[in-house]
Amino acid sequence: MIERIFAPLTKKVSGAFGLNDDAAVFSSEEGNEIVITKDAIAEGVHFPEGLPAGDIARKLVRVNLSDIAAMGAKAKYYLMSATIPKTTDKKWFKEFAEVLAEEQEEFDISLIGGDTVSYEGKISLSLTMIGEVRKGWEVRRITASDGDDIYVSGTIGDAALGLAVTQGKYGNISEASKEYLISRYIKPLPRMSLGNRLSEIATAALDISDGLIIDSEHLRKGGEIYSDKIPLSDAAKEVLEKHPESFELIVTGGDDYEILFTSNPETHAKIQAISAEISLNLTKIGRVEGDKIRLISSSGDKILLKNKGFSHF
Amino acid sequence: MIERIFAPLTKKVSGAFGLNDDAAVFSSEEGNEIVITKDAIAEGVHFPEGLPAGDIARKLVRVNLSDIAAMGAKAKYYLMSATIPKTTDKKWFKEFAEVLAEEQEEFDISLIGGDTVSYEGKISLSLTMIGEVRKGWEVRRITASDGDDIYVSGTIGDAALGLAVTQGKYGNISEASKEYLISRYIKPLPRMSLGNRLSEIATAALDISDGLIIDSEHLRKGGEIYSDKIPLSDAAKEVLEKHPESFELIVTGGDDYEILFTSNPETHAKIQAISAEISLNLTKIGRVEGDKIRLISSSGDKILLKNKGFSHF
Repeated sequence: MIERIFAPLTKKVSGAFGLNDDAAVFSSEEGNEIVITKDAIAEGVHFPEGLPAGDIARKLVRVNLSDIAAMGAKAKYYLMSATIPKTTDKKWFKEFAEVLAEEQEEFDISLIGGDTVSYEGKISLSLTMIGEVRKGWEVRRITASDGDDIYVSGTIGDAALGLAVTQGKYGNISEASKEYLISRYIKPLPRMSLGNRLSEIATAALDISDGLIIDSEHLRKGGEIYSDKIPLSDAAKEVLEKHPESFELIVTGGDDYEILFTSNPETHAKIQAISAEISLNLTKIGRVEGDKIRLISSSGDKILLKNKGFSHF
Repeated sequence: MIERIFAPLTKKVSGAFGLNDDAAVFSSEEGNEIVITKDAIAEGVHFPEGLPAGDIARKLVRVNLSDIAAMGAKAKYYLMSATIPKTTDKKWFKEFAEVLAEEQEEFDISLIGGDTVSYEGKISLSLTMIGEVRKGWEVRRITASDGDDIYVSGTIGDAALGLAVTQGKYGNISEASKEYLISRYIKPLPRMSLGNRLSEIATAALDISDGLIIDSEHLRKGGEIYSDKIPLSDAAKEVLEKHPESFELIVTGGDDYEILFTSNPETHAKIQAISAEISLNLTKIGRVEGDKIRLISSSGDKILLKNKGFSHF
């Protein structure tokens, strides 16, 4: 059953052997190196019990794609392990595989391996995403320099606000805003088009999964982030206007899957050009300097936060 | 905490970035291709609740190594996702990582990525093992020809008998035999030295994880397997003598992690030479022919089995 459902997802890659061999085989293009990441998601942590199978599949794929983009690489293949309650029915697997097929189409990737385990426990999924980048052109996290600008893609905070909306918060915002924020939470948008261009412009990069502030500390450098420069969606602006205390959630909430990158100020014009080419806002929000990340208000004061963001374990 | 415990396991590979980046980066040697496999193991399915952390770590690594060996490849790197109950203490992780370190030493592999998730559920682990093989030299499952001989490495059935012993069966065999069989169940021996030589001798290969009979059907060819040629350990022989009905378990029980391979009869002398070089018995147990696997007794009769072996889902 599983083989019938998942094997068709491998049909574009002969080295996947239709999931019928002990392992898959592939080569990188000459002059390229392999970029690989593996993230797990579990019921009750990364998604609530009862979330539709398709939403789970989409999130599993996209959180891993986002890591590949943040390295400046192009995603190509993935392997997946699904450890699933015994009571799960065939319909669940079909829906799960249907969304995998959509994701494969959208992001030009292919399943090449993995397995399923049926057990008496909760849903626990793990995905290994494989990409390629020109040798030596990968973009790392800790390679920024003092004086570099700090940029983010897209808008910040939507996913955390969306999660809060699903939990019944911010009841007085418009239905359209609610829908938008929830969709940003359920359907993160990994920034693959930016990932493909990142090595041209970035001195360092990472994806924002745990929250803007805590993830910016992964640069291992200090810097100022100007709170009034942080790009917000119209929906987030509406929440912020009606619930000013939501600011803290916007800058510390996880699941954005936007890319934060640093670059030499001389690169500014090129960044604007690439932003236009890939139709994605890239906003300068701060500057690398010193050894601590500081969030600065429009009046120049340092903003203190109660929590910096989501922390595993 | 996790970072401190797992990051040291990456120290030999600079492209793992000490687990501090979004993804790991590596290149294959020129003329090689990448071989990759991903197997999950879960509490209550692949190991009992309460099994020591080190035994779990060892099994997780070795079941994946065995797949790489069965492709004729050399293992190099791995990524691991560990989804673990919130109540798990630091001691568990330390013990787990200590055995990973031993396995790295023994099999010359290195951790390069992965993650840990803490949740309210059972232990669910997934490992991605990466190996290399000379381009085009991978050994597949379905490439055997009529007339090829069928070989297996080591001895068959020990692990399944060992599991039965842990469940209180075969109480009248010697303590030494019990210990041996249990150790074969707890500490599978992936046949990496054979894997490195497989492309020289095998027309097809696979690892025996679900049982000799069911796995031999993965050749997608038929053949005869001579029951009296199946190599048994002294301990398995003792069980079989005292419990003749255990024969069925021996040929259908899983977890052996021996390699079954086929080869042209002309290769026989070379196989014997390699067997001596790597100090591993390689035993001819049958012959590829037709389209069904048949188990044949010493008197030439076909043996019928109640079950063929472990089947996922």
